[in-house]
Amino acid sequence: MIAEILSTGDEIRSGALVDSNSAHISRKLEEAGVEVVRHSCVGDELSALETIFKEIGGRSDVAIVTGGLGPTTDDLTAEATANAAGVELAMDEAARRSVEAFFEKRNYPMNPSNRKQAMLPKGAKCLHNPVGTAPGFMLKMDRCVFFFMPGVPFEMKRMLSDKVLPEIERLQGGTRGLFMVKTLGTFGLPESATGERVAGVMDAFPGIKLGLRAKFPEIQIKLYASGEDEKALNHMVEAATGWVVEKMGIRVFSVDGNSMEAVVGDLLREKCSTLAVAESCTGGLISNALTDVSGSSDYFLFSGVTYSNEAKVRVLGVSLDTLERYGAVHEETAKEMAEGTRHLANADYGLATTGIAGPTGGTDEKPVGTVCIGLATPEGVHAWRHLFAFGQRRMNKAIFAMTALDKLRRELLGIV
Amino acid sequence: MIAEILSTGDEIRSGALVDSNSAHISRKLEEAGVEVVRHSCVGDELSALETIFKEIGGRSDVAIVTGGLGPTTDDLTAEATANAAGVELAMDEAARRSVEAFFEKRNYPMNPSNRKQAMLPKGAKCLHNPVGTAPGFMLKMDRCVFFFMPGVPFEMKRMLSDKVLPEIERLQGGTRGLFMVKTLGTFGLPESATGERVAGVMDAFPGIKLGLRAKFPEIQIKLYASGEDEKALNHMVEAATGWVVEKMGIRVFSVDGNSMEAVVGDLLREKCSTLAVAESCTGGLISNALTDVSGSSDYFLFSGVTYSNEAKVRVLGVSLDTLERYGAVHEETAKEMAEGTRHLANADYGLATTGIAGPTGGTDEKPVGTVCIGLATPEGVHAWRHLFAFGQRRMNKAIFAMTALDKLRRELLGIV
Repeated sequence: MIAEILSTGDEIRSGALVDSNSAHISRKLEEAGVEVVRHSCVGDELSALETIFKEIGGRSDVAIVTGGLGPTTDDLTAEATANAAGVELAMDEAARRSVEAFFEKRNYPMNPSNRKQAMLPKGAKCLHNPVGTAPGFMLKMDRCVFFFMPGVPFEMKRMLSDKVLPEIERLQGGTRGLFMVKTLGTFGLPESATGERVAGVMDAFPGIKLGLRAKFPEIQIKLYASGEDEKALNHMVEAATGWVVEKMGIRVFSVDGNSMEAVVGDLLREKCSTLAVAESCTGGLISNALTDVSGSSDYFLFSGVTYSNEAKVRVLGVSLDTLERYGAVHEETAKEMAEGTRHLANADYGLATTGIAGPTGGTDEKPVGTVCIGLATPEGVHAWRHLFAFGQRRMNKAIFAMTALDKLRRELLGIV
Repeated sequence: MIAEILSTGDEIRSGALVDSNSAHISRKLEEAGVEVVRHSCVGDELSALETIFKEIGGRSDVAIVTGGLGPTTDDLTAEATANAAGVELAMDEAARRSVEAFFEKRNYPMNPSNRKQAMLPKGAKCLHNPVGTAPGFMLKMDRCVFFFMPGVPFEMKRMLSDKVLPEIERLQGGTRGLFMVKTLGTFGLPESATGERVAGVMDAFPGIKLGLRAKFPEIQIKLYASGEDEKALNHMVEAATGWVVEKMGIRVFSVDGNSMEAVVGDLLREKCSTLAVAESCTGGLISNALTDVSGSSDYFLFSGVTYSNEAKVRVLGVSLDTLERYGAVHEETAKEMAEGTRHLANADYGLATTGIAGPTGGTDEKPVGTVCIGLATPEGVHAWRHLFAFGQRRMNKAIFAMTALDKLRRELLGIV
């Protein structure tokens, strides 16, 4: 079964609003075993709507349309549908009750313009909207069954799960397939090298489709599979995952789509260990990422964002001598920062970054993109220096933070 | 001039990724006076790509296509374009130099698969990519000039402004009108209330189009205007801006699209003042935002991300007595945190947050969404308590951080 998604409305067409509805609908349809082949968006204009309804009607089995069901004059979906289907608009009893029920339940006065929302193309079946004024509807045009829903995300999501997906399941009859996707988080190779290394998975496992997604600085490897037999599908996806992990090695940090900060957090929790951070160039990004994870207070104790040298000395106890001899961006300074924060917060691990995020502040010896990372453990202290060439300040902060978290991950796994 | 936007890639088609590129491109094209009539998305599939290229080629003047230019086997844009245009793929010298320059500049070894990125359809003109491996290209098919760009947002944005928009301006010849957009950053009213308050601007200034954009927790008010006479246009936009600022008052924090953290940074720099932060519930988000601004080391000295109570006591000098009597989430604790970090870093201002971001940790007295903010100044110390009902952890962190920065902004402006 082949489906298309159509978003309507000038806000999306003009870019005033990012269309997040289509991604949600795609995911839900793919989970239901329906193949989504195209998304489109057109504005609030009768002829544009009619044209695209006719196009879709001629080529797809199912269409999910959002937007244009409101009470105002620029809500044209029902009228355009009637035109495309060559039928009249008429007051629909079920739709009228749906609109009236909304207002009665809330003791709101009903606006006369809301009556317009109950005018549906003849032959359409009303889809009740329990959380908004706009009823949806479904109608077959040409070879395609169209589902029309409101554009407001929470109204759309409710109608999709309660009304549309059950109707689609009915249309599918017994033919519904299974769909599976596995997301592996990796760090340490660029997208191109990652692609080369794992491209063979599609030959090794016919039936697996490979996708790469750059979520800077992470590269996600996605394995897609579809079929009829759940057990065989599971088995194939697991085997393909093992194959990819073998090719990528320690660079795979999660096989369940989890973020680096969640993975590090789980490792700390497993070891009943605690962490303190000292950030210079990353400016709080490491602690912000760690504390985005619910429950991070179990292991995350403290981060000292010591942007000034004075703060490095006063808060973390970095020695003036070290700063004078080596400068703020140096392995020795990173070590003292890591030890300082570990000691200050009474933590098991101390992780520190000091570097040059740019765009200014670079020198020939220490160009923009240089980062020194310190890691203090119960056994001792390590430091590393890296140079990244991304130029942009936010990208440097992001890859510095990811590199530091990855050092800690490898230490916790015993593979420094 | 009529334009379409096409996003390609299985991630967007399947809903794994929300397509934010299309909204950005739409806005930029409309600002350039180009009418965007349709967005589409298809997956990484040769025949789907060829089909839609032919459709668009027959009906639009300009097409902006993103994605599918990477080095891997699922990057099919160049091949599909060659098929649709009925030409061969060939090594393009400018594209080869663009790819090689990227690797040389960064001292990375070039992967053999990157050579594929220099294979363009014959007749295409290469668009140099200074920040990524994938060169773009442009090619006329049927009646339409196609521009192909990488899907990675920051590469796409750079290529759009540096290469594509100037080419489009050339295509437009002398017919292009002037277009102006003014972005006001506001904080403190929900989108609907903001809309009601400023809707009248379109009646007061015919020719001004109003747009609202929720960039949580900021609400941006956009004023669009177009015409022929630059001076008259400037005058109208300035007058409309004044009208909106009068309606919204102090809630407008910038009239040039600047972020809250940049505005606060400018105010600190103007006063030659320095800032130290103490973050509990915001977990580093405030310092991360502040240090995203280049040059922030001029005024930002230190943030103590004191997640544990022990760190609040040991690092910031919060008294055990206060913590025991009032708890960690309280105005008194926030005050001591603000004073503690100000003193520790020897800063002019100390800003502190302590609260409950959720999803767990709430009580009847202090539910999830509660935040206490402390602000220590050269003259004294203030504290506030707020309750937000967003539920989600990241949203709470974001609105807590924004509220804290807004308190500091108002203090720096003398309007607490």
